[in-house]
Amino acid sequence: MVKLVLVRHGESVANKENTYTGWSDVPLTARGVAQAKAAGRLLRQAKLQFSAVHTSVLIRAIKTANLVCEECDQLWLPLYKTWRLNERHYGALRGLNKDDTRKIYGKEQVALWRRSFYEVPPKLNVPDTDDRRYQRYPRSILPLAESLEMATQRLLPYWDDMIAPRLLRGENQLVVAHGSSLRALLKHIEHISDTGIDGVEVYNGEPIVYTLDQRLEVVDKRILKTNQ
Amino acid sequence: MVKLVLVRHGESVANKENTYTGWSDVPLTARGVAQAKAAGRLLRQAKLQFSAVHTSVLIRAIKTANLVCEECDQLWLPLYKTWRLNERHYGALRGLNKDDTRKIYGKEQVALWRRSFYEVPPKLNVPDTDDRRYQRYPRSILPLAESLEMATQRLLPYWDDMIAPRLLRGENQLVVAHGSSLRALLKHIEHISDTGIDGVEVYNGEPIVYTLDQRLEVVDKRILKTNQ
Repeated sequence: MVKLVLVRHGESVANKENTYTGWSDVPLTARGVAQAKAAGRLLRQAKLQFSAVHTSVLIRAIKTANLVCEECDQLWLPLYKTWRLNERHYGALRGLNKDDTRKIYGKEQVALWRRSFYEVPPKLNVPDTDDRRYQRYPRSILPLAESLEMATQRLLPYWDDMIAPRLLRGENQLVVAHGSSLRALLKHIEHISDTGIDGVEVYNGEPIVYTLDQRLEVVDKRILKTNQ
Repeated sequence: MVKLVLVRHGESVANKENTYTGWSDVPLTARGVAQAKAAGRLLRQAKLQFSAVHTSVLIRAIKTANLVCEECDQLWLPLYKTWRLNERHYGALRGLNKDDTRKIYGKEQVALWRRSFYEVPPKLNVPDTDDRRYQRYPRSILPLAESLEMATQRLLPYWDDMIAPRLLRGENQLVVAHGSSLRALLKHIEHISDTGIDGVEVYNGEPIVYTLDQRLEVVDKRILKTNQ
């Protein structure tokens, strides 16, 4: 039986300010740093050992991954950073306060953008071609906005090529990513329906520990929490 | 013209206590953390942009690499961690205070171990086979002790395969490693003789910036320092 652990990054400045971020880089808050360290201690207490760690190219996830690994004495592990694990791209909602968008677009529309699997938020006019981290790839990878379904489509090739094969070899894997990119992954792993994913939340710094069988079907799922 | 930057990790607890460490894991001191951040700011001020970062599997180097990259806004870069960039293995001297070893073995012998290219320090009786980070490799990689020449031999394949090809493609590279493993690399890059390397020191957190030509010969070398 192999273990897959998903960790959402610690609280970011945008989480605290309740704004949409997506592919924007926002730092962790002091609370977010503490959450990341606490997640690492939970993994150490659970004696979980990994062969590799996977994260996005956004610093709130990378910093969380490093803090988690340091706290569970596995900072030496290979850490793979990929744009495919980035947060869902929120398009023109980026940088807007979530309450403000409800006032502008209406509560129902915002709920659809946030929770429907297929709804695409308002698009950017131009992609972020000046961000060096994406310039090593074809320009076509740069979204103007993503539905959760679109985020799933760009995430799954990484799961299939880089995470699942290691799990199939019996190697425990740690994935540190974002609220929506983890919802997409969790939907795939647990075979949750397009409508069923609506009510699923993933909380900052609370490790989700899956035990998977040889076909990567879920045998057990538990969420680790601190006693606070 | 391509840039290669070498950074020795910030001050570790062992540096402060003047003990031999080698492959042992010792944390950075608060001063070491500050040195690492300062090195990152120097690289940012010099507007140095890299395509990849290379470090050892020892936490003092990995933490330094992460702090440097965060400070120069390049935490998203691929970070490769390899045992081949580890510090020289000090064998049975590991954990001993440097002054104490002089009392035990004599000043001349210790000077030979520290500065001669070929002298091997007293060997361990058994290799560190219980360290999980080396178990993914053949047991034969585990040294009982290393001369600087032996450290060079295991470092060069990584240089040839992973660093030099990127430089030859015109991509700036950052290497964050250790006093002796960087002396070994510097000796190779600058064609320093076996006896000439004796007097060369690499200081914690002071970036060495090489400008290299198309054959990776040194056109310019400068050491960045803070104004303090």
